[in-house]
Amino acid sequence: MRSVAEVAAAAKAAAPTLARASTLAKDAALEAMAAALDAGHGQILEANAADVKAARAADTPAALVDRLTLTGERIDGCARGLRDLVGLTDPVGEVVRGFRLPNGLEVRQLRVPLGVVAMVYEGRPNVTVDAAGLALKSGNACVLRGSSSAIRSNTALAGLLRDAVEAAGLPADVIGLVEDTSRRSVSELGRLRGVVDLLIPRGGAGLIQAVVTDAQVPVIETGVGNCHVYVDATADLDMATRIIVNAKAQRPSVCNAAETLLVHASVAEAFLPPAAEALRGHGVRMVGDEAAQRLAGADPAADSDWDAEYLDLVLAVRVVDDLDAALAHIARHSTLHTEAIVTGDRAAARRFVAEVDAAAVMVNASTRFTDGGEFGFGAEIGISTQKLHARGPMGLTELTTTKYVVEGDGQVRA
Amino acid sequence: MRSVAEVAAAAKAAAPTLARASTLAKDAALEAMAAALDAGHGQILEANAADVKAARAADTPAALVDRLTLTGERIDGCARGLRDLVGLTDPVGEVVRGFRLPNGLEVRQLRVPLGVVAMVYEGRPNVTVDAAGLALKSGNACVLRGSSSAIRSNTALAGLLRDAVEAAGLPADVIGLVEDTSRRSVSELGRLRGVVDLLIPRGGAGLIQAVVTDAQVPVIETGVGNCHVYVDATADLDMATRIIVNAKAQRPSVCNAAETLLVHASVAEAFLPPAAEALRGHGVRMVGDEAAQRLAGADPAADSDWDAEYLDLVLAVRVVDDLDAALAHIARHSTLHTEAIVTGDRAAARRFVAEVDAAAVMVNASTRFTDGGEFGFGAEIGISTQKLHARGPMGLTELTTTKYVVEGDGQVRA
Repeated sequence: MRSVAEVAAAAKAAAPTLARASTLAKDAALEAMAAALDAGHGQILEANAADVKAARAADTPAALVDRLTLTGERIDGCARGLRDLVGLTDPVGEVVRGFRLPNGLEVRQLRVPLGVVAMVYEGRPNVTVDAAGLALKSGNACVLRGSSSAIRSNTALAGLLRDAVEAAGLPADVIGLVEDTSRRSVSELGRLRGVVDLLIPRGGAGLIQAVVTDAQVPVIETGVGNCHVYVDATADLDMATRIIVNAKAQRPSVCNAAETLLVHASVAEAFLPPAAEALRGHGVRMVGDEAAQRLAGADPAADSDWDAEYLDLVLAVRVVDDLDAALAHIARHSTLHTEAIVTGDRAAARRFVAEVDAAAVMVNASTRFTDGGEFGFGAEIGISTQKLHARGPMGLTELTTTKYVVEGDGQVRA
Repeated sequence: MRSVAEVAAAAKAAAPTLARASTLAKDAALEAMAAALDAGHGQILEANAADVKAARAADTPAALVDRLTLTGERIDGCARGLRDLVGLTDPVGEVVRGFRLPNGLEVRQLRVPLGVVAMVYEGRPNVTVDAAGLALKSGNACVLRGSSSAIRSNTALAGLLRDAVEAAGLPADVIGLVEDTSRRSVSELGRLRGVVDLLIPRGGAGLIQAVVTDAQVPVIETGVGNCHVYVDATADLDMATRIIVNAKAQRPSVCNAAETLLVHASVAEAFLPPAAEALRGHGVRMVGDEAAQRLAGADPAADSDWDAEYLDLVLAVRVVDDLDAALAHIARHSTLHTEAIVTGDRAAARRFVAEVDAAAVMVNASTRFTDGGEFGFGAEIGISTQKLHARGPMGLTELTTTKYVVEGDGQVRA
């Protein structure tokens, strides 16, 4: 088993070749990777079955076993994802801006790959394929550290992808899998300054917090979403019900699902009873303050509920006096992911948009739209909830940096 | 004395008001800040004289005392810098991109301030004014932690600036000075997750390294520059001499000054003797490999010289076999700041530009041009040598992030 440092060093050594590869060469590699998945169903499913069997034997919850499980259809989905990347514009080589200085120097700011992008993730082995594909298309070598529960699946997938990349004429080491799935290996990755150019943790709040506080390499925080929907005094109440039901129940396990409903006191009596009925009809359990207990039949909320990212069919409900109180609640409990207002009042919408600090602010729309696919970015490596480098859905462009190229004829500074 | 946490919390509380302030309000505050410096010469010079006296008493090297010293002229320069910011475009509010989704949702990516920007810096008290001005214009509250040697000057400057901002109708706490100049205060700043949105260390490699490895908040590394000038086989040798003399000697104490000269073996005999004479004419002392000792009269170089950022009239000189060897040397010793090639060969220039990994790559130009002022950005908070968020000279735009605003009519996700 190669050490974390060895895997990363091999990726670093291979990165310049990939960084300079043409779009045609990278697209050919992506097609080869997809074809390798097509041809490798048997091998992948066998490895995955062993992971699933081990997970079941360890009494892993059914939802986690489901995330871990690959099927022919899911593998086809991964291959399709790789082929979709072929159609996307290569960000590398874009001239972001260019200008001529008074002394005749010609300056271009060119988009270039970051170098080595490391990812730490949990559960789903399809992330191995998605991350390898996004990194390759954007010209970056990747170092992938999945969970121990998926190690057999990830090893099978990475092996197929590496062979395919090599057959397509690029170095296999641009895809590196860390086989050491100990906690220590995450910490080691985060300390490889000068080798790892970016570390992206994808998973629960615990994993992300641990990586961010421990890492010495640049990190982008992704995906923790305690998203709020605020129903204002002037909201169209039917629209508000449709939005909160969609935001909470359409896919509760994802980061852009809503976790808290805030309701203006003046519409609480009219809105909450039918909204609660609709939510319950979608299997949603509610916890809330006194008014929500009375009007929505919610169970009593604990203080911790206002900070909970349930990722489940649970919703915290609170009645607030006005927009100010809603903004204060959001400022206190937001994870800066996505916040929504439902309102008919232009001034309220403008204040909400201006004052809420988040990657995305929705007016009269479901929080579920904060998504690279929905935004038309074509693919997404995660949703950044930090302010540096990338905020919101991260596509190929967010996996690049720039370089200034300055050309002259002997200019010196006066 | 307020604690680090108190100063930062006050800045955080004041930040939203500044973030929403109009450009007119911010420009009025900048003018008020400049006027306060104009009127405050006596007070500033008195405080500075005490700092300088203490530094002299502590046997501080003359160069450092010089950096610490303020004069009427230097204060005027600070005031001019603030007034220059008035003329620059406010980055806040820019619609970076916008599009309509197939379902009718309207998406805008808006440029917004980061929130609270902290700076840790050494020596020069003028950084207090520069940083406060750049932060204010870009809508960010700032937390400034200067060195203990400049604490009296910084306190006088920050007091004047805070009063001016308040008189102009914005909260004084958008400019926070950390009066605790212990080492611990830097570490404390770096741990204020959720309060400090960005921490920028400005100073020597030791300070930067300490901040980067210790901080848990997002950091941008600035300014360590082991910059190389490579003189290729086909270089115009007079041009090469002009460039290396300028890159080394025009202002040796700054990060974009050259520290190492690499010379292609085929031109070493013709180039090095006259180039060395010109360099010596500008007071430059050389250390080098055997060929450089023979041809340039250099003293023997130690291994550590290839990694040294002298920031002084010292230059490491090495003769290399070819472009490959130059690229390998740079890849090994570069701090990713600025690298230059002098060449007449188009293919060599293209390879150098493509293969060198740095914030800026120069062809036939001095390394000294990597500078926000030279690039026409008008002002600069530092030169980023990392790849995330900002690379190269950082102006106002680099002190912002974005926010997606999504407006609809009740859209939900299918």
